[in-house]
Amino acid sequence: MSENKIEIGIVMGSDSDWPLVKKACETLDSFGVGYETRVISAHRTPEVAIEYSKTAESRGLKAIIAAAGGAAHLAGVLAAGTVLPVIGIPVAGGALNGLDALYATVQMPGGVPVATVAVGSAGPVNAALLAVQILGTADQGLRDKFRAHKETLKTKVAAANERIHQ
Amino acid sequence: MSENKIEIGIVMGSDSDWPLVKKACETLDSFGVGYETRVISAHRTPEVAIEYSKTAESRGLKAIIAAAGGAAHLAGVLAAGTVLPVIGIPVAGGALNGLDALYATVQMPGGVPVATVAVGSAGPVNAALLAVQILGTADQGLRDKFRAHKETLKTKVAAANERIHQ
Amino acid sequence: MSENKIEIGIVMGSDSDWPLVKKACETLDSFGVGYETRVISAHRTPEVAIEYSKTAESRGLKAIIAAAGGAAHLAGVLAAGTVLPVIGIPVAGGALNGLDALYATVQMPGGVPVATVAVGSAGPVNAALLAVQILGTADQGLRDKFRAHKETLKTKVAAANERIHQ
Amino acid sequence: MSENKIEIGIVMGSDSDWPLVKKACETLDSFGVGYETRVISAHRTPEVAIEYSKTAESRGLKAIIAAAGGAAHLAGVLAAGTVLPVIGIPVAGGALNGLDALYATVQMPGGVPVATVAVGSAGPVNAALLAVQILGTADQGLRDKFRAHKETLKTKVAAANERIHQ
Amino acid sequence: MSENKIEIGIVMGSDSDWPLVKKACETLDSFGVGYETRVISAHRTPEVAIEYSKTAESRGLKAIIAAAGGAAHLAGVLAAGTVLPVIGIPVAGGALNGLDALYATVQMPGGVPVATVAVGSAGPVNAALLAVQILGTADQGLRDKFRAHKETLKTKVAAANERIHQ
Amino acid sequence: MSENKIEIGIVMGSDSDWPLVKKACETLDSFGVGYETRVISAHRTPEVAIEYSKTAESRGLKAIIAAAGGAAHLAGVLAAGTVLPVIGIPVAGGALNGLDALYATVQMPGGVPVATVAVGSAGPVNAALLAVQILGTADQGLRDKFRAHKETLKTKVAAANERIHQ
Amino acid sequence: MSENKIEIGIVMGSDSDWPLVKKACETLDSFGVGYETRVISAHRTPEVAIEYSKTAESRGLKAIIAAAGGAAHLAGVLAAGTVLPVIGIPVAGGALNGLDALYATVQMPGGVPVATVAVGSAGPVNAALLAVQILGTADQGLRDKFRAHKETLKTKVAAANERIHQ
Amino acid sequence: MSENKIEIGIVMGSDSDWPLVKKACETLDSFGVGYETRVISAHRTPEVAIEYSKTAESRGLKAIIAAAGGAAHLAGVLAAGTVLPVIGIPVAGGALNGLDALYATVQMPGGVPVATVAVGSAGPVNAALLAVQILGTADQGLRDKFRAHKETLKTKVAAANERIHQ
Repeated sequence: MSENKIEIGIVMGSDSDWPLVKKACETLDSFGVGYETRVISAHRTPEVAIEYSKTAESRGLKAIIAAAGGAAHLAGVLAAGTVLPVIGIPVAGGALNGLDALYATVQMPGGVPVATVAVGSAGPVNAALLAVQILGTADQGLRDKFRAHKETLKTKVAAANERIHQ
Repeated sequence: MSENKIEIGIVMGSDSDWPLVKKACETLDSFGVGYETRVISAHRTPEVAIEYSKTAESRGLKAIIAAAGGAAHLAGVLAAGTVLPVIGIPVAGGALNGLDALYATVQMPGGVPVATVAVGSAGPVNAALLAVQILGTADQGLRDKFRAHKETLKTKVAAANERIHQ
Repeated sequence: MSENKIEIGIVMGSDSDWPLVKKACETLDSFGVGYETRVISAHRTPEVAIEYSKTAESRGLKAIIAAAGGAAHLAGVLAAGTVLPVIGIPVAGGALNGLDALYATVQMPGGVPVATVAVGSAGPVNAALLAVQILGTADQGLRDKFRAHKETLKTKVAAANERIHQ
Repeated sequence: MSENKIEIGIVMGSDSDWPLVKKACETLDSFGVGYETRVISAHRTPEVAIEYSKTAESRGLKAIIAAAGGAAHLAGVLAAGTVLPVIGIPVAGGALNGLDALYATVQMPGGVPVATVAVGSAGPVNAALLAVQILGTADQGLRDKFRAHKETLKTKVAAANERIHQ
Repeated sequence: MSENKIEIGIVMGSDSDWPLVKKACETLDSFGVGYETRVISAHRTPEVAIEYSKTAESRGLKAIIAAAGGAAHLAGVLAAGTVLPVIGIPVAGGALNGLDALYATVQMPGGVPVATVAVGSAGPVNAALLAVQILGTADQGLRDKFRAHKETLKTKVAAANERIHQ
Repeated sequence: MSENKIEIGIVMGSDSDWPLVKKACETLDSFGVGYETRVISAHRTPEVAIEYSKTAESRGLKAIIAAAGGAAHLAGVLAAGTVLPVIGIPVAGGALNGLDALYATVQMPGGVPVATVAVGSAGPVNAALLAVQILGTADQGLRDKFRAHKETLKTKVAAANERIHQ
Repeated sequence: MSENKIEIGIVMGSDSDWPLVKKACETLDSFGVGYETRVISAHRTPEVAIEYSKTAESRGLKAIIAAAGGAAHLAGVLAAGTVLPVIGIPVAGGALNGLDALYATVQMPGGVPVATVAVGSAGPVNAALLAVQILGTADQGLRDKFRAHKETLKTKVAAANERIHQ
Repeated sequence: MSENKIEIGIVMGSDSDWPLVKKACETLDSFGVGYETRVISAHRTPEVAIEYSKTAESRGLKAIIAAAGGAAHLAGVLAAGTVLPVIGIPVAGGALNGLDALYATVQMPGGVPVATVAVGSAGPVNAALLAVQILGTADQGLRDKFRAHKETLKTKVAAANERIHQ
């Protein structure tokens, strides 16, 4: 849990997802966005999942990030229970290498969207950035920080250019 | 709802699945196995889904059949709430033509199985037959009916042989 | 263009996407959320794309929805130019039936997220709903409307139940 | 072979599947469900496969679990010969990484179902759990054990929560 | 059944495959190669399948052609029971459009090959041609006919050239 | 090159395929079937490929085995130039892990078949066995050896059974 | 054949590809680039294919466009025989809907490139445009025409904008 | 940067692509073709991408090679801004192992082609060779060098033949 006011709920289906999810936390930290982390399984602790999403709004959350692999129902189940935007991170791995998680996260039926980010290492970072952008729609300061983040990306590309020319 | 004692719950994510699910009903009818049918959406009516699966055993059901397409979470969500066997029918259709439904139904995490049958037209018939086989493990009469069903299949193959030779 | 204050930019790669995108417009209309619509091609009018996304924030937009098929670069190119959240609708069709559009939309590199919704008919509706949820993070009224929307979904499921039992 | 009364037949296409299948055995052991294990190849020992499935019912088996990779015909061939429910474990590996095994196991024609579980490490555990659920339809004690199993899953999720917060 | 000496057994999993399989028959007819046709299901009539392949050699067959869709086990099951070469035609159709049939036919385990031809309309013609080539290894006359067939292909390409230039 | 009379031509697209192809050679050796091995690239040495296949019959070959990966055109190009049966081994590896090789080998147009075996480790062994079966159509001795080979497979399964029960 | 000096050879595997290939011709016509069209099959007329590509340079061609479906070897086989750039159009259709053609065209081995364009309706137009760009590297006039073509694309997008706003 | 006159621009989306792209440089070096290398991200430095492609022609470039992975928009974005031919290298890696990059590179809409080469290790070499072929359309010397390159390929195949026969 971060020291900032908690606005984002980060949920993962298993603690084996933690090393991946950690990157989302670090990204939110760098923007000063507060969050809480929870392991909740759509299939092993379904009531907790429902309860978590149903109370998310009243507990002050603004958005939920959910990471799961395989038949990744977590983001969809959370989206079912809340009016908040839910961001889904399909976790790669297993025999189908995350294609199952991607399809199970993104192919939500009409009425209940999940904002899906990339399967693979870019996923958790981008899920956090998307959360920042969502909060930023009502927060000029965050938008400015995001602008600075975009400048940093450019600086990194410049540095990469130097590296390949050495 | 059939006239026989209700032992199988058949759940579909949308009434657009009804023409497909009907074949499961007809198959159960032919074995004299009672069932009830319900439209329950894992994402639109999540509490109903939880409630349905939690009370399934006490209401006398022996197994649940769930049909859903796209990010097909229905079978998995029902399996989360019950100790009864859950049979999943991945419904074909949409841009990914049921591959999303197949993966979202079959790739359940360790601990919470879904007995998945074929995506496509064979799915609902086989889901019903599987339910019959499950009930048959404790019912010699049903096993004998299933044996007769297998004989019928052979007769149909024989008839097919005659057709192609005419 | 809607009569409400314009907060959402809806961009499509081709006017052949219009019948699909129209559903997103109708959904936003039903929530009283204002939007503008544009045909912009990442490949045919790249400067317009850059210009559009660069000025989106200052023109008062809060989020952008982008629909494209094939090598669907549109959402990503728009996301490159703005700090606003960008929602990507992968458009089905063509030889790969939208799988190319899905991958090209969702697999964005770390740093530049695109909030991807389903490929297929659920996509445009859910893109609009996601935009509503994003605006809702700072708008209690919209969140309440979204809650009502969720109740409507339940009513529809109830009606579907009646239909299959007739 | 376990010490309990043998009710489940576990068949694998090759002894290279044994490390995977072992997890199914351990799961059945934990429920006190008896089983036998056999290596039978649908292609190398077809008569044994037919004989095994034809005599399964009379030998007191209640269900069969079959694990195979590649063109995984084993579960289907066993299902052809018995009225008992057959559970298929698609074994990952090889160039197509188990996608061939998944399709060859789950896409059975109408009339002859195979209850397919996940390709990958969750498969054998879930196959065993499904077998327990099937036996449980006529065995209140087993259903209660399965309920306890579900509680254990919740405890594990709670423990995972503690781990990520340390 | 053709009037020529029967050397090829053509087996199909269902008489719905007949329009496709017919093309294989016509191709064999054009080479004067005799054949018999049978509907045999690996799953509905497994004993017939075993019996058919076990007696194929002694009944004078030189090769078997098997056409099946979905979890296409037919060619593999026939190959299990005979020393004759078995040619598999994966039949397209269903939700996975023959990809399941292709994988289930071609991915045979070491020891029991199936000579697989294309999924789609070229399959049955090429299965028959392959059978002719196989017989041709010991029949100069057939090889010469095949050479003539190759010349015909060239003539057709020449005719196609004329068509596009008119 | 083996000491037996050369009846099978084994061609590979690159000597990196040699460790795989070697298994085909060993299998043919075990049946006493003579063969020659060649590296011929459909794209780097196209004239050699054409020449090889055109002269194959007159040089006494009875069948050709071709192994190639990626855009695996080798088997098809050889099949274009000969009336002999051509067996294709799709070689796994590369970014698409042999799926490209499988499709490029098996999806031949009507008129020019390639007898395709499994992509993966079973491929070269089965290609050799298929060649033996093809020669066996006119050689009772080879058919008997193949029957013995089938018995060996059964013995191996029996041994596997003993291993898992120890 | 066009009236302009022939610089581009357009080859198709079958005259069934003609309606598709025609679009490439029309595109070249609009740039005043001369071309010839031929039906050549890599598998049915292999010598013609080799001959065509071997003489292409000396006959004054600057680039070759090849369209083929299924196991689309045509572009690769032509590339094998010439130093000219070869542009491959994977033709959609058949059970695998052009995925086989895409892989067989693009996955060429190191040393022999094929410049692959989109599978689907954009393919032939883009193949022709790529040919124009290639010729344009040494022809300022063509580059200027291509610039005008790019302006036309922009005009069309503007017109599309008007259409959706009416 | 090479010592030769710079005619080819080589752009990569990240310096992690450098080891791969290096092979393209070495290939161009071996033909004496000059090039420059740049890291440019379509999403992190979009203006640089546009600027680069817009000035490419006036800076004397003849063609551009672009390498990118994931949602590989780089080649398409560069193609949008120039009349020069753009060659796309889909970079393998990530959860979808380059299939996303392949589709995002090759499936360009009508009007804006990208000449796509293989995903995997053959890609960068073939991209460079394609660039050489393109320059060669107006440079007899380069065409002769390419002819020599083709002879080298043949020599290598001959050497491979010797290796497998030792």
